[in-house]
Amino acid sequence: MQHQGVTLWFTGLSGSGKTTIAKAVAHELRVRHCKLEMLDGDIVRTNLSKGLSFSKEDRDINVRRIGFVANLLSRNGVVAITAAISPYRAIRGEIREMTANFMEVYVNAPLEICESRDVKGLYAKARSGELKHFTGIDDPYEEPLNPEVVCYTAQESIEESVIKVITELERLGYIPVRQLASLAA
Amino acid sequence: MQHQGVTLWFTGLSGSGKTTIAKAVAHELRVRHCKLEMLDGDIVRTNLSKGLSFSKEDRDINVRRIGFVANLLSRNGVVAITAAISPYRAIRGEIREMTANFMEVYVNAPLEICESRDVKGLYAKARSGELKHFTGIDDPYEEPLNPEVVCYTAQESIEESVIKVITELERLGYIPVRQLASLAA
Repeated sequence: MQHQGVTLWFTGLSGSGKTTIAKAVAHELRVRHCKLEMLDGDIVRTNLSKGLSFSKEDRDINVRRIGFVANLLSRNGVVAITAAISPYRAIRGEIREMTANFMEVYVNAPLEICESRDVKGLYAKARSGELKHFTGIDDPYEEPLNPEVVCYTAQESIEESVIKVITELERLGYIPVRQLASLAA
Repeated sequence: MQHQGVTLWFTGLSGSGKTTIAKAVAHELRVRHCKLEMLDGDIVRTNLSKGLSFSKEDRDINVRRIGFVANLLSRNGVVAITAAISPYRAIRGEIREMTANFMEVYVNAPLEICESRDVKGLYAKARSGELKHFTGIDDPYEEPLNPEVVCYTAQESIEESVIKVITELERLGYIPVRQLASLAA
């Protein structure tokens, strides 16, 4: 039994844990021999969207490009994993509409937690005014209303979040049901 | 026997016949049940490169993006067909280097022929100075030195060009050898 192509769309604040969970999900899927591509925010900014700003207009263009590429991949049988903040509900909805298999994962952590993690030092720069248009500080984040999965990374372990995502992929028939391989080891 | 993923890269002047041949090749591959995606110049300008100019720098960015997406697709088993002018040898070489299966098709027609066709009226605009940086007029086109296929569209029929491309795809083992389906009908 083979897996299907699907766009697995992670959304959430900077520092919420999108990339961490996405990478752990990707690892589990690789163990299961799924074809997959990871389009995280940095890869995309480098290869598809260099020169774009963080204005609403440019963010929308950036997220649409990710959606365009993820759709090309997923309609050809690839699990396309995206992990950009993608703060605007309307654009995420637009991509959902145009994509045959779309699964949204809301990586939900309170702003205070994300800010206290501040892995890349970006919140500090946003607070000092060095970075403008920073999501959660001086730019909005619009929560998903009906995401397929919500990961509460302030309360859950990474493993628990990964299990939620994998289980939902199985339940929706995108991947065959199996024992969790990478986590069982 | 299944086909492999490959980036099938058409290059040539505006009006040389890239898109015409690429579409006919795509038709033949569809009849053979190949997974394929067509990334022609207009699709890419709309979805990946809106806002880019035709300066050397922006053209390079545009062509690198096409290469990035074609590579994502072809390394996942898709025949990714590109049909942008892609005038600079160095960038085409760079994409060849990073792509596992890469096949370059030089669609070669003399400038006079391309200009006399002028399907989109672009040469007229370039000659009048309305369009700047137009390849072949006031911007260079660097011919491929070792393309896998050359189609001479001033002398050959579309069918002859398609046969050359399909035969080379077969010879290199990217697709199974078969009777030409769409042309035989």
